[in-house]
Amino acid sequence: MRIFNIEAYISYWAKKVNTFLDGYLYPDETNKALVESMRYSVFAGGKRIRPVIIYSAYGIFDSNFEKATPFACAVEMLHTYSLIHDDLPAMDNDNFRRGKPTNHRVYGEAVAVLAGDALLTKAFELMLDRKVNVEAEPEVLLDAAYNLAAATGESGMIGGQYLDISKNKEEENAPLFLEVIHYRKTAKLIAYSAELGAILGYATSMDRENLRYYGEKIGYAFQIVDDILDIEAVDKELGKDTGRDKSLNKITYPAFYGVEGSRKRASSLIEEAIDKISLYGEAATPLIEIAKYIINRSK
Amino acid sequence: MRIFNIEAYISYWAKKVNTFLDGYLYPDETNKALVESMRYSVFAGGKRIRPVIIYSAYGIFDSNFEKATPFACAVEMLHTYSLIHDDLPAMDNDNFRRGKPTNHRVYGEAVAVLAGDALLTKAFELMLDRKVNVEAEPEVLLDAAYNLAAATGESGMIGGQYLDISKNKEEENAPLFLEVIHYRKTAKLIAYSAELGAILGYATSMDRENLRYYGEKIGYAFQIVDDILDIEAVDKELGKDTGRDKSLNKITYPAFYGVEGSRKRASSLIEEAIDKISLYGEAATPLIEIAKYIINRSK
Repeated sequence: MRIFNIEAYISYWAKKVNTFLDGYLYPDETNKALVESMRYSVFAGGKRIRPVIIYSAYGIFDSNFEKATPFACAVEMLHTYSLIHDDLPAMDNDNFRRGKPTNHRVYGEAVAVLAGDALLTKAFELMLDRKVNVEAEPEVLLDAAYNLAAATGESGMIGGQYLDISKNKEEENAPLFLEVIHYRKTAKLIAYSAELGAILGYATSMDRENLRYYGEKIGYAFQIVDDILDIEAVDKELGKDTGRDKSLNKITYPAFYGVEGSRKRASSLIEEAIDKISLYGEAATPLIEIAKYIINRSK
Repeated sequence: MRIFNIEAYISYWAKKVNTFLDGYLYPDETNKALVESMRYSVFAGGKRIRPVIIYSAYGIFDSNFEKATPFACAVEMLHTYSLIHDDLPAMDNDNFRRGKPTNHRVYGEAVAVLAGDALLTKAFELMLDRKVNVEAEPEVLLDAAYNLAAATGESGMIGGQYLDISKNKEEENAPLFLEVIHYRKTAKLIAYSAELGAILGYATSMDRENLRYYGEKIGYAFQIVDDILDIEAVDKELGKDTGRDKSLNKITYPAFYGVEGSRKRASSLIEEAIDKISLYGEAATPLIEIAKYIINRSK
């Protein structure tokens, strides 16, 4: 079996995404600081995990990877908007992310709100642009964009963020909310990313379901690992304010199940994800390696 | 000629929109306050001018009005999100809108940000939903949603709001920015609304251009009238903090051209709009009456 270098693999796809976004996001004469602030967060060092999942899922069904790039970039812009808004003073009030000052600390709160709004809007504009996505049929663009909206709205990602800021761990039934928060806030967009690869590859509905299942499980594990890292990591390593969850009194996995219990849960989720996609054989190697990478990451 | 009752006409279509949105926006067990806050602003007494423009433009080309309703509601949700975010403390810091406390004053800033995000997302979800929009072809949904994104992003509505909060009337070249602000912040979405009616009615590209032209002109006039009302209206009548533009040192029409000069400009814009669509004869009556209504409104 070939040796799979996951870091190099991620870098390869991240570069495709960065190159496209660099050419796509540009200001006109009147919106310079706004677009600059959008670009600041888009290029603030994200690992592009969601795009890498999209490319990897797509690779199981098809190999015209250039076709997937605008979709991968759209999802990354949408993810970036969610980070900008989550960091706002009225939300998590974070000063740093990935070792850099958060958007509102650099551009002010008003511009940060608008930069988030604009990235959200731009994600749909890019995904729905027939001049860019010439190789995808209208039905595919629709399917992709509709499901993106459904995964990230008031019963998806935004709903998860809402619960995250409004529930705290002293609350009765807090552990029950834990599942919903993690599922909505993180797992739904990652599940969508995996399914998007299948959508772009004209996969069957059974295949779409398998990919979504995989994405849900690793998305869940991703959030649990995030919670653990928040407790354990030193500022330098994680690059954002650490121990924030505790000071914000947030509902987290480790708060209820301890660090060891959380690690076990994350591991078993990763196993379930890998089991499901093993049926795709060799073609599933990248997704399997991504799953392992998520559980082993230290930042 | 029949007497056209514009108030009754607006109410008729507004009711269609309200009924649809009332059934469409509902909470689940975990996002009650979030959806409540979305509904609070959606049902805060807006006149539904954009939906009425969509229906009226559509009526020139086709008469299956039920088909237009989800699109009209999507545009109204998007408009509502922009109001919620514009009112935020970091932006215009408004306490009242249409005589009611602004969203963040009732639900807090964090929920207001999320409610805006969710309405923006929901607008695309609704427009792209093939199960709802069974009578529109995939190409039409795509066309409608793509152009919505293009009209409301960083070089559209959000770009206008960015300029509005970042430029002030002491600045050199302020009158130059005035045109761009009004065009982007207000006229582009109204122009899109008029064009959307044409898109849904399978109109030619020349017809689409005519409708867009009409929308641009009345959108412009709408914003100028808004600026005048901000100066003149008493709190009770306009239902929001008045004289705010001045205290925020905003670039407005009356600040540079006086109230009389502004009125003249608005009137000539309305004339241009009416001239353009008069070629559609009787079918254009509603759009002509809407144009007149905009210039004559007192709130």
